[in-house]
Amino acid sequence: MYDNLDEIAKKENVPVEKLKARIKRGSLVVLKNSVRDIKPVAIGEGTKTKVNANIGASPDRFNLEDELKKAHIAVDARADTLMDLTVGSGIDELRKTILKHTEIPFGTVPVYQAFSENKQDMNIDSILSAIEKQCRDGVDFMTIHAGITYDIIKNLKGQRLIPITSRGGSLIASWMAENKEENPLYENFNEILEILREYDVVISLGDALRPAACHDATDIPQIQELINLGRLNKIAKKKGVGVIIEGPGHVPLDQVEMNVKLQKKICDNAPFYVLGPLVTDIALGYDHISSAIGGAVAAMHGADFLCYVTPSEHLGLPDAQGVKEGVIASRIAAHAADMVKLNDNKIDYEMSTARRDLNWKKMFELGIDKDIKKIYSELCEKEECTMCGEYCALKSARKHFE
Amino acid sequence: MYDNLDEIAKKENVPVEKLKARIKRGSLVVLKNSVRDIKPVAIGEGTKTKVNANIGASPDRFNLEDELKKAHIAVDARADTLMDLTVGSGIDELRKTILKHTEIPFGTVPVYQAFSENKQDMNIDSILSAIEKQCRDGVDFMTIHAGITYDIIKNLKGQRLIPITSRGGSLIASWMAENKEENPLYENFNEILEILREYDVVISLGDALRPAACHDATDIPQIQELINLGRLNKIAKKKGVGVIIEGPGHVPLDQVEMNVKLQKKICDNAPFYVLGPLVTDIALGYDHISSAIGGAVAAMHGADFLCYVTPSEHLGLPDAQGVKEGVIASRIAAHAADMVKLNDNKIDYEMSTARRDLNWKKMFELGIDKDIKKIYSELCEKEECTMCGEYCALKSARKHFE
Repeated sequence: MYDNLDEIAKKENVPVEKLKARIKRGSLVVLKNSVRDIKPVAIGEGTKTKVNANIGASPDRFNLEDELKKAHIAVDARADTLMDLTVGSGIDELRKTILKHTEIPFGTVPVYQAFSENKQDMNIDSILSAIEKQCRDGVDFMTIHAGITYDIIKNLKGQRLIPITSRGGSLIASWMAENKEENPLYENFNEILEILREYDVVISLGDALRPAACHDATDIPQIQELINLGRLNKIAKKKGVGVIIEGPGHVPLDQVEMNVKLQKKICDNAPFYVLGPLVTDIALGYDHISSAIGGAVAAMHGADFLCYVTPSEHLGLPDAQGVKEGVIASRIAAHAADMVKLNDNKIDYEMSTARRDLNWKKMFELGIDKDIKKIYSELCEKEECTMCGEYCALKSARKHFE
Repeated sequence: MYDNLDEIAKKENVPVEKLKARIKRGSLVVLKNSVRDIKPVAIGEGTKTKVNANIGASPDRFNLEDELKKAHIAVDARADTLMDLTVGSGIDELRKTILKHTEIPFGTVPVYQAFSENKQDMNIDSILSAIEKQCRDGVDFMTIHAGITYDIIKNLKGQRLIPITSRGGSLIASWMAENKEENPLYENFNEILEILREYDVVISLGDALRPAACHDATDIPQIQELINLGRLNKIAKKKGVGVIIEGPGHVPLDQVEMNVKLQKKICDNAPFYVLGPLVTDIALGYDHISSAIGGAVAAMHGADFLCYVTPSEHLGLPDAQGVKEGVIASRIAAHAADMVKLNDNKIDYEMSTARRDLNWKKMFELGIDKDIKKIYSELCEKEECTMCGEYCALKSARKHFE
């Protein structure tokens, strides 16, 4: 847990002692399974906002090569972490392949495996077995939907526009409803923590009841689950397991700040991992933009980790181009927030200096997407762009005002 | 000025008397030149956030057909207004063509014409002549950079990372520096207002000194000009000319709210027209996303009118696809803000209802871009999408929780 801090200290420009204190307080986690040979990544207080890219297949579409390509594209676009969300068959194969071919922290949702292999016969043994197997393989963080409890779901009917959109959440909730039993992840939380601790795997407490519509944001089921996550966070911290808290979802713009502050309060400042949030439900085909708006505002107010959303969210699995666009949109949101919360604006200063000087080569180097150069390479041969041509304001301002 | 309010009242769901009071107070303007036969559009207090799309050519690239195509694409993507920013030759031709073939309010920057035709010999006569000609043609609103004054520019050198990025602003500033004379738009503001009033043309007070880099945001030159705009706003209001105030530009995320509130205070709640704002300088090739983040936050806090930014901002004139993407990104920002400031969330509720019911046809109808259906039309033949396949959370939650 306290290993590998020198490298992080350097990368994040935070002294090791401060990192240690934050890890101890639970406001920072380090992602790196003890059996995996990768550079660790810190998430939480005083460090850069991180971006996760989801990959993974579904029963309707499984192609190992495609998913590996998406993983590489996500890494190239500077995703900080990857999660495999595969359901159906091929989960072991895909996980091992991605772990072998990438070098950034990798997360999973073990209940997908337990359920894909056992359906309603899934039980705590098959879940623990999936968790243990995935830990052994080197997974660095795992979403565990332990906060959705029987008392919440028994009253859920009719309370929301969309009851459950979280896939793991709906699996667990349906299992509970079918079996009339408590959530096995909740009931056996200590056993789960013991496995994770053995491998230094961080637990990402899933929000099974994240709002799927702006209408349902910040409602009672969401907050009931958050309260459970707050309690589970305290238990995990005592056990020495790093915790991330997952959060919404679809949230109107004026509720984003409050959601972050509420999570931080209830969960003792544990790192907050938001999916989006999407600030409107209607941006079909453009949810990466809706998500960048919500993500930037969330991160400015303290969210630590942004799960990317691709243009094909709500429409289907993304292709490689969608993965790239999703990562870039989230990176823009993360950086816009870090400029404010970490005063991280050196690169913006350099970009604007290059822009003033019409130094295209430098601008392309500093831009969020290195591939932009390929499309606009002819600019390196000239000064002003086609926007203004000879009427370039930057050029004409030089004479008198620089 | 008080004509055409019935239609607006219906469209905006605001009683005519309230609209009249707001126009009188100067917190609302109606865009429609008295000689033009189009539906009027209201901008300001208590009405939906509007989106402008810029079109127009430069000396490096002039093609009438291309620009007309962009205008049509912007209208199809539901831009509320168009502005022609052409510099160089062909300004008359392009303006007349767009005015003839479109039916939404149309704006211009007359100093572009005066300067393109006269260069440094431009004077108040050529400016007034351009304004009058464009008013006669039916232009509905005009950017006039009257707030940049000699006392500001004489101290500008060395004060900013990028002195001036506004094209109109740099033309005027360079003209002042060359001629050592006061800004002719400032000195002859009353004559300009008289022409505009004759045609019910709204003045959009340009922000020649809008920050071109986050580093320069909310700096002294920007605020000096804003103070002038506040004064000019009072003069125009007295003369019975509707006023919009233009605003930044590049603004760090935590300064966006304050910029809106400052403008509203200094300018007596006049409608605020923001260009972006862009919340980072480094989103080269993706500035529509950077702008959507800033625009949503600005509009939530009171900005009334978003000037779109396309993916090719800072790189060149947009193509038709870029125009479409720019309009859609700004529409997402505008709607995310209107959900909050106008409680305008009926369509989100309908979308989420359709999503819950896996009613793809309805989702495509309600989505921000009607063309998305073409790409994903096969979804109308099935229920769940490729994201989860048979593991669809929405479907599995139905049995127990709806």
